[in-house]
This record gives sequence, structure tokens and C-alpha cells, in this order.
Amino acid sequence: MRVVVIGGGAAGASAAARARRLAPDAEVTLVEATGMITHAPCGIPYALSGLVPSYRMLRTYSPERFASERRIEVLTNAVAEDVDVDGRTVAVRRDGSVQRIRWDALVLATGARPIVPKLEGVEDVRPLTFRHPEEVTAASARLGSARRVAVIGGGYIGVELTEALVDLGKEVILFEMMDRLLPGPFDPEVSKVLEEAMKAAGVQVRLSEPVRYLSRKGGRVVVGTDGSEEEVDDVVVGIGVRPNIELAVKAGIKLGHTGAVETDDMMSTNVDGVFAAGDLVEKFHLVLRRKVWIPLAPAANKEGQVAGANAVVRGSLRMRGIVGTAVTRFKDLYLARTGLGQEEAARNGLDVESTAIVARTKAGYFPGGVEVTVKMVAERSSGKVLGVQVVGRDPIVAAYADLSAVMVERGMTIEDVFFSDIGYMPATAPVWHPLIVAARTLSKGRF
Amino acid sequence: MRVVVIGGGAAGASAAARARRLAPDAEVTLVEATGMITHAPCGIPYALSGLVPSYRMLRTYSPERFASERRIEVLTNAVAEDVDVDGRTVAVRRDGSVQRIRWDALVLATGARPIVPKLEGVEDVRPLTFRHPEEVTAASARLGSARRVAVIGGGYIGVELTEALVDLGKEVILFEMMDRLLPGPFDPEVSKVLEEAMKAAGVQVRLSEPVRYLSRKGGRVVVGTDGSEEEVDDVVVGIGVRPNIELAVKAGIKLGHTGAVETDDMMSTNVDGVFAAGDLVEKFHLVLRRKVWIPLAPAANKEGQVAGANAVVRGSLRMRGIVGTAVTRFKDLYLARTGLGQEEAARNGLDVESTAIVARTKAGYFPGGVEVTVKMVAERSSGKVLGVQVVGRDPIVAAYADLSAVMVERGMTIEDVFFSDIGYMPATAPVWHPLIVAARTLSKGRF
Repeated sequence: MRVVVIGGGAAGASAAARARRLAPDAEVTLVEATGMITHAPCGIPYALSGLVPSYRMLRTYSPERFASERRIEVLTNAVAEDVDVDGRTVAVRRDGSVQRIRWDALVLATGARPIVPKLEGVEDVRPLTFRHPEEVTAASARLGSARRVAVIGGGYIGVELTEALVDLGKEVILFEMMDRLLPGPFDPEVSKVLEEAMKAAGVQVRLSEPVRYLSRKGGRVVVGTDGSEEEVDDVVVGIGVRPNIELAVKAGIKLGHTGAVETDDMMSTNVDGVFAAGDLVEKFHLVLRRKVWIPLAPAANKEGQVAGANAVVRGSLRMRGIVGTAVTRFKDLYLARTGLGQEEAARNGLDVESTAIVARTKAGYFPGGVEVTVKMVAERSSGKVLGVQVVGRDPIVAAYADLSAVMVERGMTIEDVFFSDIGYMPATAPVWHPLIVAARTLSKGRF
Repeated sequence: MRVVVIGGGAAGASAAARARRLAPDAEVTLVEATGMITHAPCGIPYALSGLVPSYRMLRTYSPERFASERRIEVLTNAVAEDVDVDGRTVAVRRDGSVQRIRWDALVLATGARPIVPKLEGVEDVRPLTFRHPEEVTAASARLGSARRVAVIGGGYIGVELTEALVDLGKEVILFEMMDRLLPGPFDPEVSKVLEEAMKAAGVQVRLSEPVRYLSRKGGRVVVGTDGSEEEVDDVVVGIGVRPNIELAVKAGIKLGHTGAVETDDMMSTNVDGVFAAGDLVEKFHLVLRRKVWIPLAPAANKEGQVAGANAVVRGSLRMRGIVGTAVTRFKDLYLARTGLGQEEAARNGLDVESTAIVARTKAGYFPGGVEVTVKMVAERSSGKVLGVQVVGRDPIVAAYADLSAVMVERGMTIEDVFFSDIGYMPATAPVWHPLIVAARTLSKGRF
């Protein structure tokens, strides 16, 4: 039995490790286009800012260690160019020559790549994008002398890169085409808290201002919007990613309505023996009850496990859905969310009620507590909690979102939340936990 | 309609407020034996140590504000002496005279009181106990000149009082009769971490050493165990509490097998029109499927709400069970738990598997993460998570226990935990959350 995995990130490495574990006699090959595997793109902003001293730390295993500990053949700087699904081979280019590798099961884990907007002047200016830790060194050198930097995109990536640039002492202008920051995952009450924190840190936040063109001017770059031009030293694009589907499409793998690869819950594609996992594939949203494309590491890791398991023992593990749990931060302000936001619920035709409350993270009399804003969205008819967003200057908000994620997954109502046996001590939580306060507010006096 | 609530702590104040809210025309009277209501006994150690500047901060409302904002008659320094369930009155002593107050619904929320062990010499030495914030002033004065203090009891109260005494610069000897700290709620792996932290802070931890006698010697106190005597300046007892059932027993209220008051899920006692809530009553344990007595504030608050609601609108709210979620700390070491421990599960005849793993709270490369120990207990046959214990130098461990509490309440299996959509970003969690790592370990390679 030969298992070949294309892509050495979270999903691919998980798939290879799982296949090896379940099939000790299988030959497992991991093909990675760069020099790193098990790399963590989420850490890039912190390697860029220097908070994490080297981009090399943004990986769990060296290729050599992964290979020897797991008995997996790891091919780095190896680009999978073509898949022959009938002959069950994959063509891999490495060191200038192409090798055909045979497989009985193939796992595609080619991930996602940054979206570069089709702007006038973009090919000339070549704004920085980030997806792989190896890009940090060149980017750091290029940004070294820049004093004033434009960031295009106020989503997760744009926000996190802005933190890095502020920490590097740059003057940052952040352009977001929508009327608020993080417009997809968060509702306005939460976006507003972030906007204020960014402004307080000196960031020029330019909302409702889509960038229309870039142009070079002397050694600088002009960023043009509908109403204005700004001269900056460099431009960073962080408007999101799209699935890396080229290899899959060439192989005849079916895409879903989101444009990402469609799989079943064993991570099987439409082609027998070919699995896919990670940012490349669609995920099933447990609240919306349909496929979505939300490319985040935890699901990628689990899909990798599921793909790797089924590649060697069909039916041994089945992927569940997601609820869109996500966390970000800007300096000491943390933002976390799960389930559906109010606007997202409305867009999907759901009749919801919501509340946004402010509560402390510790007992009122206990030092060190901070105020957090909790927005909770519940289905009007059933009282089911559909989503929660939390923002505040403590990483604990991520844990509130985790707790909410399980509540949303399990279909808990606001009354279930009220009665859940959440713990208390003055140094860790108020006796009425912020999530319980939100649920009580939604009950309108019923409890 | 007249509602009388006896006891102004968490449960009583919640009951009074809820009755008022649901029955705007009712007369509601809150009878409290001390001068404070809505007081927070959990904060006592921190008022004693000075971390919280005054014991007066350990309350949510002044009696006057509670009375005026809620339109509730608040009688402080008023002791309920006797209940006449046929005549529907309660005798309340206040300012030297006794008044009979009529009620249509009565809520007993008399709480719990510290256990004073029946030791030789205990009446002479009168060791300090703590239950009410008002006790802090006298205790601080008495402890002022003490250099060396013995604490009897290594449960929650003993541990938290030890922190206070250490913070006050005292030399502390902690006596625990069992062979480890927190022997009820935690398993040995977790107790051991606490023991090491206490020793590192200079605490003499004396395990398996029940105190047998106390005696005065000059201005000091001798603490005698089976094998040794220690001379100290004062003694603090923190071995736990028992329910304050005297008034209930006099009124003919039925007790359950735990010795606390038995109620149904509306918090009704066996006597029509009499409700009970808080530390006085038994709670239904959702894993053990039987009544237990675990007196903690979150359940007390909710029971108060339920009792107050049903006192005025019968059937309007029903209490759910608990899973024994609890949190404590010693200085910067936090300990949290939910569900059943391994020993507790075994005592209850459950066939379980368990694991204790060590994991980091943030991505490996991210600064500021700490190692936490997670112990997870699952039912062998079903894979259901029955309990989780977490210990580490970050208050986030409490949030892990909260998340686990919901998982245990909802009957989630280790596979459900693995697939739950817990969030990730390097500054708030590793991509494999410590709870997922524990669940994976228990799966023995299945995922």
C-alpha cells in the first residue's frame, strides 16, 4: 500500500502521520513544495514583528525529524505538477527533474493562497502578501526602511499584519472596502471596539474605501481610492485567501458551490482513492446545514486526520461539521467568535434576537478583571444560541468563544446556557459568567 | 401576596429579586442575620490578605440600595428563630424584640456554616473560622502579631486561607488528614502539583496528619498530631462547611440522604409554600444521577432564582442538575475541575479510563504560554467524558473546566471532544487544544 500526500502543512502532515499510524506497513510519502513542513501560517505576523524570534520556529517538526520519527518519506522543495487518476501516479518536480510516484491512495492538501486584487498597477508595485513562514525573511528586508505602510484589507489577515507593522514602528494606513473592520465574521458592535483600539494605536483606519489603483512615484507608492491618494513606502495585501485547487482541477476532482473541493465526511473526493483535506476543501457548517469555505487550522488538522485514516482504513473516522469558531487579536485586544453573527443570520433568513452586554472577567471586587463585550445571537422561536462574539483585553475571550462553540454545536438554548454548571471563583470569573449574563438578557426577565 | 426570604446571601438575594421581578405587586421581605447582604464568602481570603482592600467590597449591593432599587423590605441583623408552617409566620428577632412575619411563600436560604472539629482543647483555643466577610476585621486584628500559623484542612478553604496567610508573611503549617491536598475533588496527579507549589512558597505541608488536640502554652498554641507537636501563634480551621439546617428542621422540613434539605426541581420542600435554595439544599448530580451536597455559589444563585420564581409563579422555572464544577487557586497556580475524578468514579462503581497530559496554553513558539496538566476521565464502554481536572499557572485553566463542564453535561464522548470546533490562534491556544490532546490520548490512536 502506497499513500502519497501532497502538501506538508497542517492537513497534509496530519494525514501522513495518521496513515502511518493506522497502517504500519504502508509506504507513506509527503510531498511539499517549500522547504518546511508542519508550518504555521498563523504565526507569520509574530515572526514579522519579531515577537517570535525566527520564522523557523513556525513549524512543529523539521522534515528530517518527521521523516525519521514517523517513517514517512518527506520530499521538500518538490512540486506536484500533475495527477494521473487512472494510472494512479503523481508527477513531482524536484531538483529540476520530474518523477512519477505511484499511489494507492492520494491525499490532496494543497491549502490556500493569498488573493492578490486585480488593481491597476498591482503588477508593477507587487504588494507584499504572506502565506508561508519562509516569506518572512525577504519581507522583513523589504520593509526594513519603510516608514509608512498601507495595508489593504481589514479582515483577520489585514488586522494581524497591521499589529506586526505597528510593532515594527511603522505608520500604518489600513484600507477596508466595507464600512467596518472584520465585516464578515463580526457584527458592528464588535468591529467598533477594534476600530477604536487601532486608532488609539495610531493606525489610520480608512473604512468604505476600496483601493482602486497603485502606482510608483519616485521610490514610493501611491495608493489611490475613489476620493484620495496616499503616498506610502510599501503596500501589504491581506484581503484573504482562495483554495489552491489547480492540481485538483487538473485531476478532475469535483468542486463544490463554494469553489473549493467537495468531499464527503471521509474526506473522499469524487475520484476513487483521492482524498482532500485542509484549506483546499469545503466544510459543513452545523448551524447553516450546508457547505461553506472557512479555511482555518483546527478543521484542517482534523480533516487531515480523517483523510489519512480513511486512505488506509476506509470508514475508520468521519469528519464532523464546524461552527466557524475563530480568534484574532490586535495587540492586547482579543476578538473571538463562533456560530452565526446577527447579520450573517439575517442574510441566511433566520429570525434571531441578539444582545450585546458588557461584563467583567473576574468578580467586581477582584483586581485584574477587564470589561469584555459579549454579543449573543439566538433563534427567536427556539431560543437556541446560534452564535457568540466576544471582544476584550484578555485572551480569555477566546475561551468564551470555545465554550460558546460547544453550546452552539450542541443546540443549547439560552435557558440551557443559564443552567450550565460553569465554575466560579473571584480570580477567574464573576459568579454570573459573562455568557450567562448574555443569556439572561436575552431571556427578557424569564430567568 | 407576601414572600419572605430567610438569608441574604447569593441564594436569598436572588430569590427575593426574582420574586419581585415576576410579581410586581407582591410584598417581598428579605431577613438577614448579619449586617450585609449579597455577600461573597469566596472573597474572604483576598480581603484577609489585603488583595481586596476592604471586606466591605465583598458584596454586590448595600441593603439600602437593594431595598430601594428592588422595592424589597430588607431586615438586617434580624435572626429568624422559628417558622410556624401551619400559621404561615416566621418569628424574627431584631433589636431585642421578636416580630412574627406572615408569609404566603417562604424561601429558606440560610446557607452553610464552618465545621469546627471536635478536638480536645478546641473550646479553649477557639481557632479562627471564616464564613462571612464581617469576620475579616476581627480576624485580621487577632492574626496581626502571629508569626507562625497552623491551618487545619487541605481542601478549598484551607488552601485559599493558606494563600492569604502566606501573603501576610506568616509561616504556615498546613495539616491535612488525608494523604494529599484537595482529596475530594482532585486526583493525585493534580494534588501533587499544588503540593509542590505550596512547598515552594514555604508552606509546611503535613499530609496524613490529622490534628488530635490543641492546647494553650504561654501565649502560644500547641497543635498535636499522632506523632508530633507544633507550637504556633494561632490556628485557622478550614475543613469545610455543613448546611445550616436548624431552622428548617424546626419547621419540619425534610432532609435528604446527604443531610441537607431535599427539594424538587422547583426548589419546593416537603412543606407546601416553603422553598429552599443555596448551600442549605442538596443538588442533583447529572453524572451520578443522584442527589449530592456540593455547596457552591453558581448553583446557589440559580436555585435562588428558581425558588423566587416558583414562590410567586408556580412552575415558571425549573432547576437543572450540576456536574460539580469548581475552581480554586494557590497564588498563581489555578486548579479547576468538573464532573467526576477517577477515584470518585471508581467509588461510584463506574468503569473508567483516564489520562493526565501536559500541554501548553499557547502555540509552542508563542511567548507567554505555560504548561498545564489536564486529567480527563471517560467511561470505558461509551467513551463519554465523565470529568476533567486542570492545573496550571494561568487562570485559563478555569475556562478549560467550564468548557469541559458543558461537554460532561451534554454527554459528549472523547470523539465529540476531538471534533468540537474549538478555536485557535497562536496567542490564545495551541492548534491542538489541551482538551483535544487529552481526548486524543484517551482514544489510543483511534484519532
